[in-house]
Parts: sequence; structure tokens; C-alpha cells
Amino acid sequence: MAGYTIAVVGATGAVGQTTLRVLEERKFPVRELRCYASPRSEGKTVEFAGQPIRVERLTAEAFRGVELAFFSAGSAQSREFAPKAVAAGALVVDKSSAFRMDPEVPLVIPEVNAHALRGHRGIVAAPNCTTVVTVMGLAPLHRAARVRRVIAASYQAVSGAGVQGVEELRRQILAWARGEAMESAFFPHRIAFNLIPHIDRFAENGYTGEELKLVHEARKILEDETIRISPTTVRVPVFTAHSVAVTAETERKVTVAEARELFARFPGLRLWDDPAENRYPMPALVEGQDDCFVGRVREDLVWEHGLAFWIAGDQLRKGAATNGVQIAELLVGQRDR
Amino acid sequence: MAGYTIAVVGATGAVGQTTLRVLEERKFPVRELRCYASPRSEGKTVEFAGQPIRVERLTAEAFRGVELAFFSAGSAQSREFAPKAVAAGALVVDKSSAFRMDPEVPLVIPEVNAHALRGHRGIVAAPNCTTVVTVMGLAPLHRAARVRRVIAASYQAVSGAGVQGVEELRRQILAWARGEAMESAFFPHRIAFNLIPHIDRFAENGYTGEELKLVHEARKILEDETIRISPTTVRVPVFTAHSVAVTAETERKVTVAEARELFARFPGLRLWDDPAENRYPMPALVEGQDDCFVGRVREDLVWEHGLAFWIAGDQLRKGAATNGVQIAELLVGQRDR
Repeated sequence: MAGYTIAVVGATGAVGQTTLRVLEERKFPVRELRCYASPRSEGKTVEFAGQPIRVERLTAEAFRGVELAFFSAGSAQSREFAPKAVAAGALVVDKSSAFRMDPEVPLVIPEVNAHALRGHRGIVAAPNCTTVVTVMGLAPLHRAARVRRVIAASYQAVSGAGVQGVEELRRQILAWARGEAMESAFFPHRIAFNLIPHIDRFAENGYTGEELKLVHEARKILEDETIRISPTTVRVPVFTAHSVAVTAETERKVTVAEARELFARFPGLRLWDDPAENRYPMPALVEGQDDCFVGRVREDLVWEHGLAFWIAGDQLRKGAATNGVQIAELLVGQRDR
Repeated sequence: MAGYTIAVVGATGAVGQTTLRVLEERKFPVRELRCYASPRSEGKTVEFAGQPIRVERLTAEAFRGVELAFFSAGSAQSREFAPKAVAAGALVVDKSSAFRMDPEVPLVIPEVNAHALRGHRGIVAAPNCTTVVTVMGLAPLHRAARVRRVIAASYQAVSGAGVQGVEELRRQILAWARGEAMESAFFPHRIAFNLIPHIDRFAENGYTGEELKLVHEARKILEDETIRISPTTVRVPVFTAHSVAVTAETERKVTVAEARELFARFPGLRLWDDPAENRYPMPALVEGQDDCFVGRVREDLVWEHGLAFWIAGDQLRKGAATNGVQIAELLVGQRDR
């Protein structure tokens, strides 16, 4: 039977689950599928193409015969096992932050920098989900007029923190509906009816890891170390889809009309911008969609060459699983040529 | 009995209700209290100092003998009745947008520009709630180092849209908890587990009324028409308290240490900024508080003289009722001198 032997590491997680769904939807040629997760999930089953698949514990031998491995089990797992997978002959698409800033590892959003895949050494990194959504909006502007400075404020869904984030919001909301106290076990504070301006650890300079990922990853993907980015990332009580309020300055002035055209033409991006019809991107609109949606496009009031826009994307799909499967499609196409 | 004859117009609304509570808490000298609302609410009762007060229908005669009137019933009501109240001898504190940009009407946040009250002609306007929260953070920086440019993204609670906004979120969440469909009647889209980047009407330039209020009101309050502000305002599924991610450029460089000191010293502002202890402002923290809370203070990564911070305030209190009662305290103090 045609197709590839594929391993999904972190198969029970939010991104792993979505990866299985996206592989199926996009009819990725799968001959054999092996699913791995932490010892805690060993023996659980996940579903693929209507079949239950037993989740195995990850070991060094897991990758024998594997041609393609998707990693979304966290940095520590990737750091330990991705090189083993490569040694066993697999191509690795890594959703963790482990290798993103490694100069020998391409960091790829296929619509933006597919060419970076050339010369990979077995591992390709997929960016942080907020980075993907933000850069999908910046890339067409950067290509046309060089993005110079960016100020971004994010509104990030709980599923960006994984299944436990989803469970925590659900549990707190249901407790509230029953008139009971809302208890926090996973996030540092209550997330129901609240906002937490804190994602990942704080660095010395007062920025969070999530914010610094956006700063550094966007530069690498857009291949321009001179872009300056100032982010604030915030967790909001939304289940799925990240949204970002972006203000960007370009070297050359881009009018609103030109920006709209650039956005509308960019693959993977949909212009959803008709204020008179109350049409603008929202989590409820983009949940389950592979494209990112951009709207509220307007002239910025601070920079002469500035544009403001609002972009939203399903961070489990384009922000993670879809982006990863798109990378895999390019990788196997490259190999087969 | 000492005290003033007071009218509260819009007494059954979210701001009106909070105004009654704040008058009581701050022991404002009330001799007589008259409560007015739309015909729909006529005959309802509200509570003040443990006493039920019948809500009357607003008429031109309502202000006979009234010394101080709080208006929070919307612009149309203010435009029609505030001049009548002034003609009857009352001082008016107006929470609507009706007179805010009128050059003859002071627009006041007491901690920021109390001096603007001098020479009022009977009406004093209180700013939009998002403006209050944002300007409480900008004012100390502006005073010390002149704010030049501001990019702000807001995260606004449903109660900013009034009692109906609160009811809509509650109704949708309870429907979700029962496994039922979430229906939207008040906001243009579902607000539960969603974000709506649209508050007030869209203007020609693509900005919303809410965004342009911030642009214009902040300049008037800070008394500097050269400040450039680029806002994005977003409704979030939070019941109370608005939060704003602010990036501000100042004429002279303000270090993070200096900014922290300026914030900590500013009346009505509390520095809540200890990342190592997961301490930063959040709606759940500031709900019910009169002060605004500022944290996540850090050097901005885009502007050389830039600072980023995150500020949150209970928009029914400092954003509306508390700010109005503070204005009233100054007005009656002025008159009594």
C-alpha cells in the first residue's frame, strides 16, 4: 500500500489530536500510523480514519521504519527523541520550541518561507502558534514594503495551553453555572471571566517567553533581523483561536486599499473586513478553519507608514497541526522528486 | 439635615447603580435623592443607604431644587435634560459622550486634571471608561516626560455595554452549560467564548467610536493635542473591569524603574507588578476596586523612549461612577469655598 509510515508523538494532546484530524482531512498518504504519548497516556486509544489506534509509550526504538514524525509533546521530549528519530531515518516536524532558533533548523510557515526547507538536516521546526497567526498577517506586507516595527497585543485561547487549559476553563465555567466556587489548578489564576497577561515564563527584561518567541521567531521566518517587535500576550477565556491586534510600520507607505489586496491575495489568509456588515475576524468565526482571517484593516494613527489590523486563526490548526502537515507535504514532495 | 439634593438619571443602569453604591460608600452628603430612568423602568425601586427609592420618569420639572445631578442614561438623554438641570440650578456630572468634546465643558479625571473644573458652566463631563483607565496610566508619564505616541489594545468587559451586556453573557454561558444554543440579542455576535473587535459605530476611517473617543478624549484630558494614539478596542467575555495593553513613547526616556515609581506615587493608581510572584493586574483582581492597577511595566522593544505596560480598572467604578462622584466632591467643595 502506498504512503508513509508516520509517528505522532504527543498524540493525546490538543495539537496531536488535531494533527490526526488534519492528516485525515488532507488525505495525507499514511501507510502506517504509530501514536506515542507520555507514560500517563499509554494504552489509551486515539482515532484515525475511523480506526482506533493504541497509544504507545515513547522509546528510542519507536522510530524504526518511521519515515515522518510529528512532535508535539513538549520541548524536553523533542530534544531527547527528535534526534533519535532522525538517526532512524525519519523526517521530523517539530511543533515544540526545542529547535526553532537553531540556525541549522528551518523554521517554516509554508506560505511564507517554504524555500527555507532546502538543506534541512532532518528536523524542521514549526513556529509558536501566536507567531504563525501574527506572521501570516505581516508576511504580505513585509514582502511588498518591508515591515520595520510591530506592536502586537494577543488574545489567546486556552487550548493554546493544551487539553488541560480547555478542561480548566470548562470546569470553572460549569462551577460558576452551578453557583459554586471556581478553582484554579492549571493556570496561575482563574481564567473564566478573567484575563491573564502571562503566558510562559517571565524573562529578565519583563517579557514572557511567549512574547519573546514572537520577537525572535518572526524575524527568523521573515528573514530580517532588523524588524523590531513589541508584544503583549494575554490568555483570554476563549476555547479555540488566537487573535492579535497588530500595528505595523513599513518602509514604504502601504495604503489600506493596497493592504487589503495584499491580504486577499496571500495564500492561507482570508480578508474578512466589512465593518458595515459587522464582518471582522473573531474566534467563533475561525474555529475549525485552516486559514487565518484578517480584518479591521485601517491606517494607523501613530506611524506615517503604519497600518493597523486584527488577525485571528485557529491556533490548533494553522497555528500548529495544519502548519505541520503542510510542512510534511512539502518535505515528502521534496524527497519524492 | 446637611447635604445636597441629588438626582441620579439612569439609576437602574449599570453605572447608575454603581453611582448609588459609591455615593453611599464615600459618605457623600446626601439630603435628598431622586432617581430617574427611562419610562420602561418607571416604578422600579433602587436601594440607597438601605432604603428603597422609587424610580421616577424623567421630566423637565425633575430638577426643581436639585443641586447635583449625575447623568448616565445615554447621550440623547443628556443632550435633552442636562441643560434643563443646569437651568434649574443644578451642577451636572455627565457620564455620556454628549458634551465631552465641547470646548466649554471640562472633561475631568480628578487625579489628572482637576484644575480643568475651574470656569465650568454647570456641566462637567466624565470620560469614556476605556479612556479613564488608559489615561490613568499615561498621565504620570506625560507629566514627567511628555507622552508623544501611544498604541493601545483594550480588553473590555461586557458591563461596559450596560446591564444588557451582562445579561447577554450570563444567558449565553448558562445556555452553553445546559448544552443549548447560545443566542445573541444584544451584541452583534456571540460574546461567550468569543471576542468582538467592534465597540460603538464604525467611522469612515475604519476606527470605531470607542477607539476615536480614546484618541480625542485623552488629548483633551492630558491637554496636549499633539499626542498621537492608535487604538484597537475589543469586547471580551469578562463581566467587569477593562484592561488595556499600552505601548507609549515619551519625549525623554523614562526607565522602567522611574516609571514604576511614577505609577506607584500617582493617586488612584496602584502598581501591581511582581512577575516572580505572578502578580499583575487582572479583571478578577480589580473588580470592585476604585483604583486602577498597573503592571507588566517593561521597556518597549520598538521605541527607544518607549515603555509597555498593562493597566486594568473597574470601568463601572473608576471608569464611571467613582470618577463621577470624585468630580462631584470637587464641585461641591468648590461651591462651598
